[in-house]
Amino acid sequence: MRSDRILLAHGSGGTMMKELIEEVFVAEFGDESLKRMDDAAALDLPPGRLAFSTDTYVVSPLVFPGGDIGRLAVCGTVNDVATSGARPLYLSVGFILEEGLPIEDLRSILVSMRDAAAEAGVRIVTGDTKVVERGHGDGVYINTAGVGALPAGVDLSGSHCRPGDVLLLSGTLGDHGIAVISTREGLSFSTDIRSDAAPLNHLVAAVLAAAPDVRCFRDPTRGGLASTLNELASASGVSITVEERDVPVHDQVRGACEMLGYDVFQVANEGKMVAVVPAGQAEAALAAMRSAPYGEDAAIVGAVAESPAGKVYVRTAFGATRIMDMLVGEQLPRIC
Amino acid sequence: MRSDRILLAHGSGGTMMKELIEEVFVAEFGDESLKRMDDAAALDLPPGRLAFSTDTYVVSPLVFPGGDIGRLAVCGTVNDVATSGARPLYLSVGFILEEGLPIEDLRSILVSMRDAAAEAGVRIVTGDTKVVERGHGDGVYINTAGVGALPAGVDLSGSHCRPGDVLLLSGTLGDHGIAVISTREGLSFSTDIRSDAAPLNHLVAAVLAAAPDVRCFRDPTRGGLASTLNELASASGVSITVEERDVPVHDQVRGACEMLGYDVFQVANEGKMVAVVPAGQAEAALAAMRSAPYGEDAAIVGAVAESPAGKVYVRTAFGATRIMDMLVGEQLPRIC
Repeated sequence: MRSDRILLAHGSGGTMMKELIEEVFVAEFGDESLKRMDDAAALDLPPGRLAFSTDTYVVSPLVFPGGDIGRLAVCGTVNDVATSGARPLYLSVGFILEEGLPIEDLRSILVSMRDAAAEAGVRIVTGDTKVVERGHGDGVYINTAGVGALPAGVDLSGSHCRPGDVLLLSGTLGDHGIAVISTREGLSFSTDIRSDAAPLNHLVAAVLAAAPDVRCFRDPTRGGLASTLNELASASGVSITVEERDVPVHDQVRGACEMLGYDVFQVANEGKMVAVVPAGQAEAALAAMRSAPYGEDAAIVGAVAESPAGKVYVRTAFGATRIMDMLVGEQLPRIC
Repeated sequence: MRSDRILLAHGSGGTMMKELIEEVFVAEFGDESLKRMDDAAALDLPPGRLAFSTDTYVVSPLVFPGGDIGRLAVCGTVNDVATSGARPLYLSVGFILEEGLPIEDLRSILVSMRDAAAEAGVRIVTGDTKVVERGHGDGVYINTAGVGALPAGVDLSGSHCRPGDVLLLSGTLGDHGIAVISTREGLSFSTDIRSDAAPLNHLVAAVLAAAPDVRCFRDPTRGGLASTLNELASASGVSITVEERDVPVHDQVRGACEMLGYDVFQVANEGKMVAVVPAGQAEAALAAMRSAPYGEDAAIVGAVAESPAGKVYVRTAFGATRIMDMLVGEQLPRIC
């Protein structure tokens, strides 16, 4: 490379962009489809339907305990595709780089992406890079889009929850949001709390195999569990009640939430999955989740009732019941 | 909407994000898949292979003669998918919005996207929105990813050009780049020059039907025709010579390039397609291109030879021959 930092010319379509693509992106990712340097990747897909999702990542800081923007950008989109019941196969990646970004910082993010993609079993097959002037952007913004193969007959949706269904959660709440905010603000508990960013497609596949009548999966990212459950209750026209004492939360995260005045149900997660399953398959689903990667702390945390439609409740450890509201306004900006 | 401008809370995962998605994005785009509000779209795909591409759009200014960032974001990705010979079907869209952006400006961009998607015959099926603090971003950055259906047996690539092949160009060069830079700099010729941003998937399909042995399509965007042809010459190990007098260029664009010191072969286009075809199918391909939307000025502009491998030449109107170099460094930042 002629420069150890990103220059505007790296986005201009000329020789320096070609150099960046060949010596950095293709070198780190190494996918056969990328090496062809065509404008679109041509890919095989098993018979069935297609699942398609996208997410953009603007997290600040770019690196935090337990991960970085690269790991987040792969895991987040893999998880979104997986929620449909599809097998995630291919990712696209679009970078917005800020002029002046050290190439070594970029390489480190690409290595995270490559490793997360390998763990998830997906290929990064097509990409694009833009460069914006110094002071715009924030080092790196990343968009990923993902496609997956959706087997015939699989039709999961947030609108399929039914009274009597059981709510499963794959592990502890709040780790990602607290890890990011504590790093950003330089809070002293930061060393103990790590982001949970992880690919959950293998966990989803295991649960779906054990509990084929799963109603839906949802990963409670921005807005936390509260947003996810309110969306499900609203889409399905049902009520959901969560048992607070059954929800796994790390002590340090609970303490940080108390200090910061956050509701842990509204804090972002990047490696947790919610599943709504018929009661008869709940134990099988739980066993599958606990045996799957990143599911060892899984628990049954609540149940679906008929009414009042669209409402979500928490039953506290003391037996009282309160409404679990969606976040109003802004809690943690730029956590993903 | 509770606010007429974008706030950080519109990206936080809470009630204001829900309001933005429902009252702006879903309201303007209206796709059935978006309305389901699931994390991934579940889509039908015809048998065959999948084409997959992505592009991020950071153009400044957001609106320019002949288009805006929304039209660009749909057309650019549709065209990238189409270059593979696939029929573009579905788009994802990821927005990075700057705090303070007027909601009406956003709506206007969404209307452009919807109209361009309708013209191309593609659906916008899944999306994501992030909000960054005021002073970061530039109003709006947009990523789109596109998937298309690639019929069995279609295998186009920049590496398939052969000596004796003929080079077709679908119309005038340089309109987009000059329209954007003249608007940005307030140059007086801006009123006469309009961006060519357009979806070319129907044109590509028409050429492919008329000339089934097409080697490749490529849309000469950033870096202009010079980058495109150098990439093809390099990937195929051939030489390409362009006849300068046969290349259509609007007089105003030619004049602007002379004033600004730009090489029109290095200026970006957003609604032009290059096709490399075997000589025996060149006339059929040209007739199909001229009959297709946006192809009325199409011309045969050059030919492929065996050597020197990887080199691109221009034969000038005076009969001299010079090398057509790729852009070195930076010409027009933020043109797409």
